[in-house]
Amino acid sequence: MSNLDCQSASEIVIFGAMGDLSCRKLLPALYQLEVCGLINKDSRIVGAARQDHTLEEFKSVVVENLNKYVKETIDEAVLTRFINRLVYQALEFKDSSSFNKLNDALAGGNDTRVYYFSTPPAIYGDICKGLHHANLITDADRVVMEKPIGHSLESSIEINNQVSEYFKENQTYRIDHYLGKETVLNLLVLRFANSLFTNNWDRNSIDHVQITVAESVGIEGRWGFYDEAGQLRDMVQNHLLQILSLLAMEPPADLSAESVRAEKLKVVKALKAINRENIKDKAIRGQYSDGFLNGVSVPGYLNEEGANANSNTETFVAIKAEIDNWRWKGVPFYLRTGKRMPKKHSEIVVHFKQQPHNIFKDSYSDLPANKLTIRLQPDEGVELQMMNKIPGIASQMRIQENKLDLSFSDTYNDERVVDAYERLMLEVLNGNQSLFVSRDEVEAAWIWADSIIEAWKTTNEAPKPYAAGSWGPVSSISLIARDDRQWVE
Amino acid sequence: MSNLDCQSASEIVIFGAMGDLSCRKLLPALYQLEVCGLINKDSRIVGAARQDHTLEEFKSVVVENLNKYVKETIDEAVLTRFINRLVYQALEFKDSSSFNKLNDALAGGNDTRVYYFSTPPAIYGDICKGLHHANLITDADRVVMEKPIGHSLESSIEINNQVSEYFKENQTYRIDHYLGKETVLNLLVLRFANSLFTNNWDRNSIDHVQITVAESVGIEGRWGFYDEAGQLRDMVQNHLLQILSLLAMEPPADLSAESVRAEKLKVVKALKAINRENIKDKAIRGQYSDGFLNGVSVPGYLNEEGANANSNTETFVAIKAEIDNWRWKGVPFYLRTGKRMPKKHSEIVVHFKQQPHNIFKDSYSDLPANKLTIRLQPDEGVELQMMNKIPGIASQMRIQENKLDLSFSDTYNDERVVDAYERLMLEVLNGNQSLFVSRDEVEAAWIWADSIIEAWKTTNEAPKPYAAGSWGPVSSISLIARDDRQWVE
Repeated sequence: MSNLDCQSASEIVIFGAMGDLSCRKLLPALYQLEVCGLINKDSRIVGAARQDHTLEEFKSVVVENLNKYVKETIDEAVLTRFINRLVYQALEFKDSSSFNKLNDALAGGNDTRVYYFSTPPAIYGDICKGLHHANLITDADRVVMEKPIGHSLESSIEINNQVSEYFKENQTYRIDHYLGKETVLNLLVLRFANSLFTNNWDRNSIDHVQITVAESVGIEGRWGFYDEAGQLRDMVQNHLLQILSLLAMEPPADLSAESVRAEKLKVVKALKAINRENIKDKAIRGQYSDGFLNGVSVPGYLNEEGANANSNTETFVAIKAEIDNWRWKGVPFYLRTGKRMPKKHSEIVVHFKQQPHNIFKDSYSDLPANKLTIRLQPDEGVELQMMNKIPGIASQMRIQENKLDLSFSDTYNDERVVDAYERLMLEVLNGNQSLFVSRDEVEAAWIWADSIIEAWKTTNEAPKPYAAGSWGPVSSISLIARDDRQWVE
Repeated sequence: MSNLDCQSASEIVIFGAMGDLSCRKLLPALYQLEVCGLINKDSRIVGAARQDHTLEEFKSVVVENLNKYVKETIDEAVLTRFINRLVYQALEFKDSSSFNKLNDALAGGNDTRVYYFSTPPAIYGDICKGLHHANLITDADRVVMEKPIGHSLESSIEINNQVSEYFKENQTYRIDHYLGKETVLNLLVLRFANSLFTNNWDRNSIDHVQITVAESVGIEGRWGFYDEAGQLRDMVQNHLLQILSLLAMEPPADLSAESVRAEKLKVVKALKAINRENIKDKAIRGQYSDGFLNGVSVPGYLNEEGANANSNTETFVAIKAEIDNWRWKGVPFYLRTGKRMPKKHSEIVVHFKQQPHNIFKDSYSDLPANKLTIRLQPDEGVELQMMNKIPGIASQMRIQENKLDLSFSDTYNDERVVDAYERLMLEVLNGNQSLFVSRDEVEAAWIWADSIIEAWKTTNEAPKPYAAGSWGPVSSISLIARDDRQWVE
């Protein structure tokens, strides 16, 4: 699985080191790996960005951000060790010759280099050219890119082509940070380490699945950027399909990148196309209007600062996804994600089939089915809803739904919550691609998403409005109600 | 199901009303039904026994025992209502003509009578004759008998014949108080209201089942009585087979007595015979010797007061029971019950099959299987053992067993724990036989048990000694270890 254990030295180069992602996530994640002793003593961390900064300036920016974003008390000894790794190099990304300076900075360093592209994708190609020009790419090097890759199949192909000219697929790590979340990783364990689930994970046992990723935040000052993307590209094509593919994939023969990624790809490829013929029954888009969140008035999407009042960009999507294969025929995966929902709340709910026969009619004319809930946030955990007899004399068989509950925060309250980026950075350093998204999967996901976007364009119907602070437009409820089901409350 | 609802009036006659069972269990159970308003206002409770007592004496004995055995504060108004129902009648059971006095006592009463035989079985026939002589048996009446019925197939046939001469099978209620326990009743709900279990309740999904009923007490001053029976007759043939049959039966079409009892019977009939050919591999008997319990020295069975030092009576049994049918072929049910075990502890553990393939070898070379534990006592509850990922950076897939737990006392802490006898008395009043044992089942159970007893007699091997305060003889461990399994600790 791993062609480099975590004790091997490698240079870590972050392009866009002064940017938001780098400051908020990447450098704090690397600091935490330092705390855990998971970075080789000889590894350096090179910040590369457009701006001219002295090393001291860079260091003070890093320290400032660690103090801001690391929740635990900073350990001074660890910080000193970490800061001593730092190198800063100003680069003109479009000028390949400027990369010679990076070559100087890295001279005499380790053979293996990890290049983290924390810049807009438009610059990926320039960076690759520059690295190549400065002779800074070998087969041992790795490149890390944030998803979404592009905003369509076409643009993703362009970006992937630019990078693949210099880096092979087995050197390329496409990050979807959902794949670094503990509860998402736990999906693999739940599914494949528990026979009760492994043996009941198909159309014979499961009625349907619901995946909800609700955010209470709105656009957070990035209206223009968000308006180009929308919720389908930003969340569904991205994070929700990752969850879906882990939930639905065939059991892999092992946990190697090759096995896991091959199974995930098969799921995405088997997604039934949503197009102009069926879009009305399969996908709903919404856009939040003025409303209230926790009693506070908040503006609608079109009334946000910098908004173009004609925008048809969706801030909410509900989709009935279907997987055309043997395991899942007839089992819908209902996806739902939106901004300005009542609360931050992400969960997966697997609805098992209702019992075919009910011998407890005195308690329930309609016997509730078993449900497995995997809470992604805020309170990570696993919950199995089952029926039990209520103790008491009143009636022989009064029964009730109960929850068998495993709250991660209660059970593992001594363990620090590991941020997804820590996990993923470590996996990059370990050279393990299992938790990264293959080019084939990215492209299959875009093919499916593009078809939906295209269909919406064709119908030219505006997104359905929903009040900020609500669970989305009414038609999202209808989407699932038509199948005689309802969203979990 | 019910041919008489609980609001109908019926006379309740307890034969042996001054005895231990009546004082400790039956009268307190009836008092609790009174608290719940579940006894018709016109119903009388008639105590019948050999001794001459005035009604006032009987009433004061009842009050004394209610104060002793009812945990909750006695409600004076309820008590008055309850006491006013009481009638006492001294009877010479062997003298049928004395039952005319009972006829006088019941004169002008309700048509339906419930006769509770809380006497040694040897007297059942006499009581029946007396009742018949006094013209006190109609088709609407019911008779309640404590199990075990007899001590062998032959003696049970004799007793059942004596009673069946006067009462039809649908008037006969054979009590096994385990069938009134909340957690035992919950077996039906767990199995048939949860598809995750219904669909996985067979040889394809389950590896084996363990049923443990451990008592810490010894013989409690009834050496002679116990020595005649032994643990196989007293516990296995009785309570453990009831649990086994509820666990293993095919899903009944409904909860009617007819359906449930027919399915239970099929299980007992399908039990593979244990006889002199296979007894060494299938059944172990033990007898406790001197030992320590909670640090206190306790005498061995043969050193108890009144003991016959040559007794071969077993105080511990471990059995590998096998059910020869389509559902359970190859799935052993390991039964284990004994006196003077380290603690009072009864539970059922359903061991699901191990995963056929293990992709988490880094954490477990031998992946633990899912386990469903149903705790009967002391802390009633349900527990599902599953594998989960341990949060943390240390390794991508460090996994661990966790328990999804439903403790009845935590979940239902407002509910009073209903004693098994309350439930069962109510069912008798309701005329519902579902929770009572049919004659066919009693006889099938004796056929199986008799064969084991016969085989032990033939081998003439003494029971294996085990120290009081231990989990039984070593050969009990071997019994299951031979199959590469072990008792849950």
